[in-house]
Amino acid sequence: MTSYGGDALTARVRDRCCELFETEVDIFPVLTGTAANALSIAATHPAAIICHAEAHVQLEELAAAELFSGGKLVPADGANGKLNAEAVAGNLATRPPGNQTLSVTQATEAGTLYTVDELRAVCAVARAHGAAVQMDGARFANAVAALGCAPADVTWRAGVDLLAFGGTKNGTLAAEMIVVFRRELSQVLAPLWHRSGHRLSKMRFVSAQLEAYLDNDLWLRNARHANAAAARLAHAIGSRVDIVRPVEVNVLFVRLAPARAAALRAQGFDFYEWSLFGEDVYRLVTAFDTTDAEVDALAAAMLSA
Amino acid sequence: MTSYGGDALTARVRDRCCELFETEVDIFPVLTGTAANALSIAATHPAAIICHAEAHVQLEELAAAELFSGGKLVPADGANGKLNAEAVAGNLATRPPGNQTLSVTQATEAGTLYTVDELRAVCAVARAHGAAVQMDGARFANAVAALGCAPADVTWRAGVDLLAFGGTKNGTLAAEMIVVFRRELSQVLAPLWHRSGHRLSKMRFVSAQLEAYLDNDLWLRNARHANAAAARLAHAIGSRVDIVRPVEVNVLFVRLAPARAAALRAQGFDFYEWSLFGEDVYRLVTAFDTTDAEVDALAAAMLSA
Amino acid sequence: MTSYGGDALTARVRDRCCELFETEVDIFPVLTGTAANALSIAATHPAAIICHAEAHVQLEELAAAELFSGGKLVPADGANGKLNAEAVAGNLATRPPGNQTLSVTQATEAGTLYTVDELRAVCAVARAHGAAVQMDGARFANAVAALGCAPADVTWRAGVDLLAFGGTKNGTLAAEMIVVFRRELSQVLAPLWHRSGHRLSKMRFVSAQLEAYLDNDLWLRNARHANAAAARLAHAIGSRVDIVRPVEVNVLFVRLAPARAAALRAQGFDFYEWSLFGEDVYRLVTAFDTTDAEVDALAAAMLSA
Amino acid sequence: MTSYGGDALTARVRDRCCELFETEVDIFPVLTGTAANALSIAATHPAAIICHAEAHVQLEELAAAELFSGGKLVPADGANGKLNAEAVAGNLATRPPGNQTLSVTQATEAGTLYTVDELRAVCAVARAHGAAVQMDGARFANAVAALGCAPADVTWRAGVDLLAFGGTKNGTLAAEMIVVFRRELSQVLAPLWHRSGHRLSKMRFVSAQLEAYLDNDLWLRNARHANAAAARLAHAIGSRVDIVRPVEVNVLFVRLAPARAAALRAQGFDFYEWSLFGEDVYRLVTAFDTTDAEVDALAAAMLSA
Repeated sequence: MTSYGGDALTARVRDRCCELFETEVDIFPVLTGTAANALSIAATHPAAIICHAEAHVQLEELAAAELFSGGKLVPADGANGKLNAEAVAGNLATRPPGNQTLSVTQATEAGTLYTVDELRAVCAVARAHGAAVQMDGARFANAVAALGCAPADVTWRAGVDLLAFGGTKNGTLAAEMIVVFRRELSQVLAPLWHRSGHRLSKMRFVSAQLEAYLDNDLWLRNARHANAAAARLAHAIGSRVDIVRPVEVNVLFVRLAPARAAALRAQGFDFYEWSLFGEDVYRLVTAFDTTDAEVDALAAAMLSA
Repeated sequence: MTSYGGDALTARVRDRCCELFETEVDIFPVLTGTAANALSIAATHPAAIICHAEAHVQLEELAAAELFSGGKLVPADGANGKLNAEAVAGNLATRPPGNQTLSVTQATEAGTLYTVDELRAVCAVARAHGAAVQMDGARFANAVAALGCAPADVTWRAGVDLLAFGGTKNGTLAAEMIVVFRRELSQVLAPLWHRSGHRLSKMRFVSAQLEAYLDNDLWLRNARHANAAAARLAHAIGSRVDIVRPVEVNVLFVRLAPARAAALRAQGFDFYEWSLFGEDVYRLVTAFDTTDAEVDALAAAMLSA
Repeated sequence: MTSYGGDALTARVRDRCCELFETEVDIFPVLTGTAANALSIAATHPAAIICHAEAHVQLEELAAAELFSGGKLVPADGANGKLNAEAVAGNLATRPPGNQTLSVTQATEAGTLYTVDELRAVCAVARAHGAAVQMDGARFANAVAALGCAPADVTWRAGVDLLAFGGTKNGTLAAEMIVVFRRELSQVLAPLWHRSGHRLSKMRFVSAQLEAYLDNDLWLRNARHANAAAARLAHAIGSRVDIVRPVEVNVLFVRLAPARAAALRAQGFDFYEWSLFGEDVYRLVTAFDTTDAEVDALAAAMLSA
Repeated sequence: MTSYGGDALTARVRDRCCELFETEVDIFPVLTGTAANALSIAATHPAAIICHAEAHVQLEELAAAELFSGGKLVPADGANGKLNAEAVAGNLATRPPGNQTLSVTQATEAGTLYTVDELRAVCAVARAHGAAVQMDGARFANAVAALGCAPADVTWRAGVDLLAFGGTKNGTLAAEMIVVFRRELSQVLAPLWHRSGHRLSKMRFVSAQLEAYLDNDLWLRNARHANAAAARLAHAIGSRVDIVRPVEVNVLFVRLAPARAAALRAQGFDFYEWSLFGEDVYRLVTAFDTTDAEVDALAAAMLSA
């Protein structure tokens, strides 16, 4: 069969992922992060899914994870957008072991990073309670680029069972993939993928994007570029603008007077308010295609406003 | 907002559909027929969904329609893959009115067509029982091309509430859309679309395909081409091969001795056995890109085998 | 905890089931057969659920099994309401192994019985394809009473993983239970039970019924009584009324002229038409509380009508 | 039909509810509060369900509401367990109008009451945004008893569309019912009720409880008794124990040193810690069958400990 993912391109992407992650994996290409998250969570058949209170799965994907998995998303706390191992342990301790799942986001919605050790610690807590670990890797490339680690170090070696490996924010047209490290879950995932309408007959057109994305480290080069643009912006404005969270990848949260934000928007800069971090905080995101000129223009506008 | 379908391309596709269907519609681009069917059925909140026993939603899409809609697919009979109005009426009569849905496929999985009058008749039965009507239009283009009617005549004017308008089988990379004629259902459909992971952030890349598909009647020209290829094949082999169903669009069902089928496959021809129609029946499908030479080669191979 | 099933009564019912089934089991009391079937099927996480085309789960429970399990009910054939091992094998052969489920009804909706050997045969087919086996035992008592076998012989020893053990049709107010033989499924079932709203805080009132039901073989004595009433009726009318299926438990299917059926109803006899078995076929069911006088009155009415 | 709720008892309960609520209603008896909440929410087909962060549907019912409704529970704030109209308005303003639902609990999980005016205010906000209103009335009787109002005043007259009318905590064995004020939702609810396995064949045994519950104001008399017991306890201990929330119905939250709590438990008193309200806070609940002697014994134990 050459349709529905049985093609040579999809096979090559899978092989490339095995090399990249230094282990045998299965892959399931999909087109949205919501699908990648919800389906990979669903493969673990959770009763509850512990995630950070700011996680995308909790705040931005409606009941996608609940629809596909039947589980309940349970928000937990932690500074700087990162799950706190003690909070996770406390929550899991109140639940029956064996069918809970931890969803961890790397890099986080707050634009911060789990170090390898931090990630190992939260995964170890999950393991100790018999919980599976899913990673929302919409910004996985930015995390690996910033940490300079092996992809395996922040996934299966740290205790991650499935990864929603993002591509769309980092250069693909619309292509993400679920990478399965605990491969017995692939058998569960296969019918979910089909049943949810996310298994394309012409999967090769998605896989072609993913192959290009992985070739010659394009995914990492794109992410390094985006991260550098954020660093350039932070450097340019940091002494005079209130940056409210550490800048570790390609996301900055800045506090701006509403008039200043409005003035920037009037000049064509596009960004969101981020009410989670208090009043007048805005999220600035750089991307694979952000130019130095764009960064400098924004910095100049922010400083002169 | 220019992401998640708020872009100009998606707006143009919607406008183009309003012209094409001669009425105000809403559109929801998706990437698979399974998504288009399951989501459009779900928007009607059915208790039961009456469909033909050979329908793709019943046989090939696992529990997609059930997952998204909560309803039960109930197969009904009818000759040549077409729902029989009396059978539909008999089935609906046993159910409470008001939350049943009829799913009708045009052209059918059997490669046959509802005439405008036949379609009106089954839709009228649905209406009389307060049931909504969803159309699986994976081969809608082939149907309109073959009937030579206005798209409106085999959709809303006949009583259809939502159409899963196929593109992938007829030339797009992977692009389908739900066209909503009963527009109060759009409000219901919008969160389903998002929740199911089928609302792309970069929707413009799907809409671009759909715009090209609709431009200069490409969708119809592609379908006419595929239909003509099937007719050419039927003409070439009809006197010597048993064609078990009427050839009305781009699908032929032929009875072949197993050895003959194996021989054809050994020559590189790719087709499925279709056990629903009895033993040794195979389904041959022509497409937008089937050449006359390919048809003639297959015909020659079939006749000489 | 003494609520939500943590009470002594529920523990005693579980112990009683371990004795009855001669193995360690878990139990999950519920109030309806639909809940018992859908939840026990869901615990197996099926992609598809193969069941007989006449099964209650397929015909009478809307999309309950699909809602809770996400799987697709796939009807298969077999004479006298019983799944045919070859048909099951043929169907399973077309599906990926490892996440399919077989749902088998004992006694069947057609009022027939799988012998121990027949049951073993269909379960063996399921096993060979890696499929789980769920039993709809709404009439399990009638089956065991008729077969005179050990309950274990027609459940786990034959290859059944979970049993929906009926009570409501056989004397309880409203009490059924899921009996889990493959106990690793209990961990999966526990949150499904809670999430579906079927875990009662005052579970003890359900368990009290189940304890009484099991005490002193009440369940079997009730079933023997019902079976005997059906046999008495069959004996009384068999020479002059067309009984269309074997009478093996407490169900008879008879062919009656419509006028005759109407006349019986006018006399207060309550029964359903059963269109699956052709025209003018009616289903007569006897129960734990059917008296000989009632049977004789019905027989007399049928013979004199 | 006399089964599945078609019996005379169920009809009488419905009639009795029409009198009680001074309007035409439909009723759907169920056996758990989880079922009553999840199904009544599901009947409104919500994209999101705004509820208080301490609501039972959010904290204690796993993903029941999500499973049956497909919607996302979105917690909102408000002092003393009550939704704040401004917070609700702010949340609804960020969502598309027309398919959101507000779930309001009366009396609340915190043992507090919405006054009629407060309830009208939050319902008015919902109405203004086109949202439906569902009420979790697990302690509805305690609320009506405490407010001394007509049941209609805190339901449909205030803007409530469906009520989960509790019984199990207030004297029934296991019987609750959904009362539908916006009756076009009943058509939607009917198949959900069946599909979820919550429609009992012998519904009469549930309805019998509900009839007794409503007869001669037993529901109100039971609730008044429970409320009085809580007041008696508060009066007895209030000067020396820290009661952390207003006592308005049958629930007290008290702060106790852990050793004191342990000592009380050692004497046989059974209660939960309630971590939502800070450390060392415990929830004490009185019931329809709590005796003065029991209250006095607990008070004495608390004061002497």
